[in-house]
Amino acid sequence: SFGQYQLIYNAFSFGIAAMLAATLFYWLGLSQIAPKYKLAVIITGLVTFIAGYHYLRIFDSWESAFTVMDGSVELTGVAFNQAYRYVDWLLTVPLLLVELILVMSLTKSETVRKSVTLGGAAALMILLGYPGEVSGGIDGTRFIWGALSMIPFLYIVYSLFVGLSESINSQPGEVRGLINLARWVVVLSWSFYPLVYFLPFVIPMDGGTATVVIEVGYTIADVVAKAFFGVLIFMIAFRKSQSPATA
Amino acid sequence: SFGQYQLIYNAFSFGIAAMLAATLFYWLGLSQIAPKYKLAVIITGLVTFIAGYHYLRIFDSWESAFTVMDGSVELTGVAFNQAYRYVDWLLTVPLLLVELILVMSLTKSETVRKSVTLGGAAALMILLGYPGEVSGGIDGTRFIWGALSMIPFLYIVYSLFVGLSESINSQPGEVRGLINLARWVVVLSWSFYPLVYFLPFVIPMDGGTATVVIEVGYTIADVVAKAFFGVLIFMIAFRKSQSPATA
Amino acid sequence: SFGQYQLIYNAFSFGIAAMLAATLFYWLGLSQIAPKYKLAVIITGLVTFIAGYHYLRIFDSWESAFTVMDGSVELTGVAFNQAYRYVDWLLTVPLLLVELILVMSLTKSETVRKSVTLGGAAALMILLGYPGEVSGGIDGTRFIWGALSMIPFLYIVYSLFVGLSESINSQPGEVRGLINLARWVVVLSWSFYPLVYFLPFVIPMDGGTATVVIEVGYTIADVVAKAFFGVLIFMIAFRKSQSPATA
Amino acid sequence: SFGQYQLIYNAFSFGIAAMLAATLFYWLGLSQIAPKYKLAVIITGLVTFIAGYHYLRIFDSWESAFTVMDGSVELTGVAFNQAYRYVDWLLTVPLLLVELILVMSLTKSETVRKSVTLGGAAALMILLGYPGEVSGGIDGTRFIWGALSMIPFLYIVYSLFVGLSESINSQPGEVRGLINLARWVVVLSWSFYPLVYFLPFVIPMDGGTATVVIEVGYTIADVVAKAFFGVLIFMIAFRKSQSPATA
Amino acid sequence: SFGQYQLIYNAFSFGIAAMLAATLFYWLGLSQIAPKYKLAVIITGLVTFIAGYHYLRIFDSWESAFTVMDGSVELTGVAFNQAYRYVDWLLTVPLLLVELILVMSLTKSETVRKSVTLGGAAALMILLGYPGEVSGGIDGTRFIWGALSMIPFLYIVYSLFVGLSESINSQPGEVRGLINLARWVVVLSWSFYPLVYFLPFVIPMDGGTATVVIEVGYTIADVVAKAFFGVLIFMIAFRKSQSPATA
Amino acid sequence: SFGQYQLIYNAFSFGIAAMLAATLFYWLGLSQIAPKYKLAVIITGLVTFIAGYHYLRIFDSWESAFTVMDGSVELTGVAFNQAYRYVDWLLTVPLLLVELILVMSLTKSETVRKSVTLGGAAALMILLGYPGEVSGGIDGTRFIWGALSMIPFLYIVYSLFVGLSESINSQPGEVRGLINLARWVVVLSWSFYPLVYFLPFVIPMDGGTATVVIEVGYTIADVVAKAFFGVLIFMIAFRKSQSPATA
Ligand SMILES: CC1=C(/C=C/C(C)=C/C=C/C(C)=C/C=O)C(C)(C)CCC1
Ligand SMILES: CC1=C(/C=C/C(C)=C/C=C/C(C)=C/C=O)C(C)(C)CCC1
Ligand SMILES: CC1=C(/C=C/C(C)=C/C=C/C(C)=C/C=O)C(C)(C)CCC1
Ligand SMILES: CC1=C(/C=C/C(C)=C/C=C/C(C)=C/C=O)C(C)(C)CCC1
Ligand SMILES: CC1=C(/C=C/C(C)=C/C=C/C(C)=C/C=O)C(C)(C)CCC1
Ligand SMILES: CC1=C(/C=C/C(C)=C/C=C/C(C)=C/C=O)C(C)(C)CCC1
Repeated sequence: SFGQYQLIYNAFSFGIAAMLAATLFYWLGLSQIAPKYKLAVIITGLVTFIAGYHYLRIFDSWESAFTVMDGSVELTGVAFNQAYRYVDWLLTVPLLLVELILVMSLTKSETVRKSVTLGGAAALMILLGYPGEVSGGIDGTRFIWGALSMIPFLYIVYSLFVGLSESINSQPGEVRGLINLARWVVVLSWSFYPLVYFLPFVIPMDGGTATVVIEVGYTIADVVAKAFFGVLIFMIAFRKSQSPATA
Repeated sequence: SFGQYQLIYNAFSFGIAAMLAATLFYWLGLSQIAPKYKLAVIITGLVTFIAGYHYLRIFDSWESAFTVMDGSVELTGVAFNQAYRYVDWLLTVPLLLVELILVMSLTKSETVRKSVTLGGAAALMILLGYPGEVSGGIDGTRFIWGALSMIPFLYIVYSLFVGLSESINSQPGEVRGLINLARWVVVLSWSFYPLVYFLPFVIPMDGGTATVVIEVGYTIADVVAKAFFGVLIFMIAFRKSQSPATA
Repeated sequence: SFGQYQLIYNAFSFGIAAMLAATLFYWLGLSQIAPKYKLAVIITGLVTFIAGYHYLRIFDSWESAFTVMDGSVELTGVAFNQAYRYVDWLLTVPLLLVELILVMSLTKSETVRKSVTLGGAAALMILLGYPGEVSGGIDGTRFIWGALSMIPFLYIVYSLFVGLSESINSQPGEVRGLINLARWVVVLSWSFYPLVYFLPFVIPMDGGTATVVIEVGYTIADVVAKAFFGVLIFMIAFRKSQSPATA
Repeated sequence: SFGQYQLIYNAFSFGIAAMLAATLFYWLGLSQIAPKYKLAVIITGLVTFIAGYHYLRIFDSWESAFTVMDGSVELTGVAFNQAYRYVDWLLTVPLLLVELILVMSLTKSETVRKSVTLGGAAALMILLGYPGEVSGGIDGTRFIWGALSMIPFLYIVYSLFVGLSESINSQPGEVRGLINLARWVVVLSWSFYPLVYFLPFVIPMDGGTATVVIEVGYTIADVVAKAFFGVLIFMIAFRKSQSPATA
Repeated sequence: SFGQYQLIYNAFSFGIAAMLAATLFYWLGLSQIAPKYKLAVIITGLVTFIAGYHYLRIFDSWESAFTVMDGSVELTGVAFNQAYRYVDWLLTVPLLLVELILVMSLTKSETVRKSVTLGGAAALMILLGYPGEVSGGIDGTRFIWGALSMIPFLYIVYSLFVGLSESINSQPGEVRGLINLARWVVVLSWSFYPLVYFLPFVIPMDGGTATVVIEVGYTIADVVAKAFFGVLIFMIAFRKSQSPATA
Repeated sequence: SFGQYQLIYNAFSFGIAAMLAATLFYWLGLSQIAPKYKLAVIITGLVTFIAGYHYLRIFDSWESAFTVMDGSVELTGVAFNQAYRYVDWLLTVPLLLVELILVMSLTKSETVRKSVTLGGAAALMILLGYPGEVSGGIDGTRFIWGALSMIPFLYIVYSLFVGLSESINSQPGEVRGLINLARWVVVLSWSFYPLVYFLPFVIPMDGGTATVVIEVGYTIADVVAKAFFGVLIFMIAFRKSQSPATA
């Protein structure tokens, strides 16, 4: 209905503004970050920049898919591209992982190894979810590919939680609370994605309601996992830059 | 009527110019701000940048909703998106709260805790007001959701007033007057929003007049609460940067 | 007629170029200004930037209002927005006042008090003139609102002239001449606005001629009051920056 | 004819590229200029920036005035705006004068006085030529206004020639040759304008040929008087910046 | 089919985002690179900037070639430009070679000589592949030109592998692993191109499937050979910049 | 035919990318160039910037001249502007000459004198070739004007070859090879232009083939004479900046 169309429309518009504003914040704030941590903040801004670009395309695709006149919503026949998010995630999720791994302050070789293995798992996770998302239905295809995608997903989340937990004690006092918070934000926000993906199987709903749940749900998850989480990364880098011991 | 259409049109155009000019002022003036306060001014500019972006979209939506020819105003059938402001507020109100909390110069942990609780309350307040605003009528739906939104609203305003009052005495002399002024600007400008929202219940008015009151009222409130209030924040940061004791 | 249409068209085009060029000049020249005076020059550039943006919109509105073919000018039925200037002035006139008050080098509290009172009077002056300008005719409505607008106008001009006169003697020798010139530029250029507004009452003229007088007259006044006057402000700041005593 | 249309089209396109390239050159080269001369080079770039903006508009106006299909050129009925150059000159000629006066290295008061008197004369010259140019014919109106415009023109050129001649001897050796060259470039290029304006009275020609002579002639003069002349100003400033005595 | 169309569409969109994000990363990170290595990182960013530009054009060309309505895909008659990649490679492959040769840290004369000979071979390789790619079929023309292109290809890859192998031992310890990884990334990613080119000869497939294999395959290869490989170059430069011995 | 159309289309697209990438390379690399040589590199970038702008216009003109549908190419009746290159060369060739003359490291007066005389000859050469190029045919008009254009061409090339040869011995060792290479690149690439211009007289060819030879030939020459040659200039400036003796 019109209300559902407009809610998704406004969610996408919110996604654009949130991602672009986050990008500006991180990159305008680069001057407050010590050289040691600049790369991590540059990557943080890249994640939200890429996401902002993709939200602009998602927003345009949504507008093209419907004609809205006098309160009535009609399909135009132009398909809404449900897969744009996967294009976005294929880039941003590996970058987010690199961001997190840099936060762990591991050795150089361990950083590279973790980045490659977790990045590869993330790409696999996104690619395995793609066929299910574009199937366009709430059916077996969606379920099977989603289930397969859960495998690398669980491996990644477990690795992150363990890795971040281990790194907390080796961090300065002023950032431990933030890293602990970041750990939970990752686990919870990343878990939101498969939750949204599978929710139409758990709770029966019509096509319009399912679309609202999926699109608004993924948008909330994206803003938390990228923009809000990025603020945590920025604050960790900022506090480390303020402290003479870690600057 | 045409005069009402044009008044709202001009109000939105004024909103665009005010927000973009404010953004330029804060960010061009960053070089005059000590590192200690740069983040607060960056956030100040982000608020007006996001608002400027949303005013551009509001302006476009208003133009699309009507055909104006030979002094006569006709609906096009394309709905004016009355909810854009909520998309804007969902981002900018939490950012404004962070701005204010940074001004209070609390401890780091208290700053984070207040930011999260007040930010959450602000998001709740905006989300609770959304269904009432998009109902499109002056009716029970609008009233109920508005009343629910007042709960977090009162909690926020009370917390701000108390918090800013407490922080004034711990501030240097040259900014106390400004913080006192900011305190009242927040209370009064933020109270303008529910006032505008509920005004059509208090004073009977037709659809056109109600739209003028709502749209011009919200615009005035936005410019005061964002651009003008941001000037106060900037001046507080500027004066603190000038003083060797706080620079 | 076509000649009148083209004269106004070219006047608006001139306004765009003058305002944008002035903005570039002030802001490219910021590196030549001591930190003490940067904010004043930033504001100077903001005034012309806002005006340039509004002249672009005025220019577009003028183009949309007429069809010009084979030397003949026809109304399209799309109304020329005669109120854009008021939207512009509502922002730029208070900013100009702040610019002038900063030039007077008053105490901080006096600066803030004057800015608020004169800014409020300026907003009142613009708002009182708006209904008369948009009435679209040369009639009683235009006259009455214009007369009301004269009240804050006279208060502002008198305050400025007295304030600038008093501040001249406390200024370094190398800028006294410029501040004296600025004082007269303000009085004369600001007086041009009500002159243009009321001129059609004094000298009978047809609609086309009245429009030329009003639009070209306001444009000349805007360029003098903003771009040319801004050059004076810039030169005052520049000379003070060159002098070791005031840099 | 098509060849004439295309020659003018290419001349305007050349004007755009020349002016924008000149602007980039001056402003990218600002870092090579001593602070003492930066303002002069900023103004030099402003002249070509304004001109580039106006050439874009002239180019668009020329494209709109004709339909070109299969080698044949037809009027569209949309008038080519022959007056855009005057809008350009009204801004750029006074700025060029300020540029030249700054080169003369006069006293501050003499600089301001000359700028105001010659600037006023330049504005008068441009305004007096405007009615003749827009008359659209080669007739008495064009001649009379052109003749009136010659009065301030001669005053300006005489003042410049004398002023630049007088200043040459007080200049360092390494720039005397450039100032001498600049003096002649001003006299010759500025004289090209009235030459082009009056040429259709001296040599009989049809409308198409007259248009080619006027438009290509003015374009050549603009590029020489602005972009090429600006290179001389830049080189004078550059050499003075290189020399320890004048840096 | 629609699924195939959308997969290619999303692959191109991914290419745009990956290339532009990579460009931003390298160029925002330039401040972290010692002057000695800045040119190499500038070139790295140029490669991905050019590629991003070309992916935008490829994406537009793909959109123009089909009409997609209600799940059905029809040709528009506007040809998809299969040769854009060659225009891209003609610029980016020589630049990538220069990047790699700079990594080898050869003598200046050897660097220039290798750049010219390998650059020439690369241009030849791309030009020899062009007629086969635009033939539009899986036929003899495609095969013959592809085979000819293999000659310079093998020469280049062999030279690179040998050159990079020889340079590894003369590199500092902290970058040897990265250069070894880069060596393999080059060999494997560059080999992907002829693999994709010839694959339709090895495995029978219809037109739609062949297009998917070619377009998605080339896109994967481009992202790995440009964006991912560029990260390796950046990290090599970054680590060398961190080390006092090589900074 | 379609293949010919597409080859020229891709050549123009290659020209855009090559010129814009070259511009970015030179200007991003300015920080690596000593102040003494910055102006030469700025000019190098201006040449490719102007060329990139003109290739965008050439590309658009080519697209407008034909309709391409289902593999068939039809004229639209909108003329392809064959003269855009001359507009480009009229600006860029004199700038290239200045670039070359700066490389020769002559005295200031000799530099200015050579710039003016060779610049004038270059402008004459381009202007003399223009009527022949726009004649649109392979006929006497093209031949005669081309022959006239050869006169200043030969004078320029001879002067450059002699001037660059003389300057080589006075240059530091590390740039002699590059200047020698530059000398030959100039002679060979500049000779390509009249070769392409006259080739249709030497080898009989149809209109389509002649257009391919001319357009692709000029594009190759432009990229070599501007972008590739600019790399040589940049490297000369870079090496001189690295050497303490010439920095
Ligand atoms: C497990 C799983 C999925 C996981 C997706 C995830 C975890 C996405 C994370 C995205 C992020 C973090 C984006 C931006 O920051 C899919 C693909 C929905 C398919 C169903 C199963
Ligand atoms: C209480 C209340 C509301 C409050 C809105 C507020 C307080 C908005 C503040 C916006 C700001 C400060 C924006 C930009 O700075 C609503 C949602 C209108 C709904 C009715 C009840
Ligand atoms: C008194 C008066 C007026 C005054 C307007 C003024 C004084 C405008 C100033 C504008 C400036 C200074 C703009 C930009 O710098 C109106 C509104 C025309 C209405 C009639 C009475
Ligand atoms: C005397 C005279 C004229 C002079 C024009 C001049 C002198 C223009 C100069 C323009 C410049 C210098 C532009 C950019 O740099 C007109 C108006 C053609 C009208 C006829 C008489
Ligand atoms: C051997 C061969 C080819 C090789 C292409 C290559 C090796 C392209 C490399 C591109 C890169 C590295 C791009 C961006 O970085 C062609 C032309 C497909 C034609 C068939 C034979
Ligand atoms: C002699 C000759 C010509 C020479 C053209 C040249 C030499 C152009 C050089 C252009 C460059 C160097 C461009 C960009 O860098 C023409 C006009 C084709 C006409 C025929 C005779």
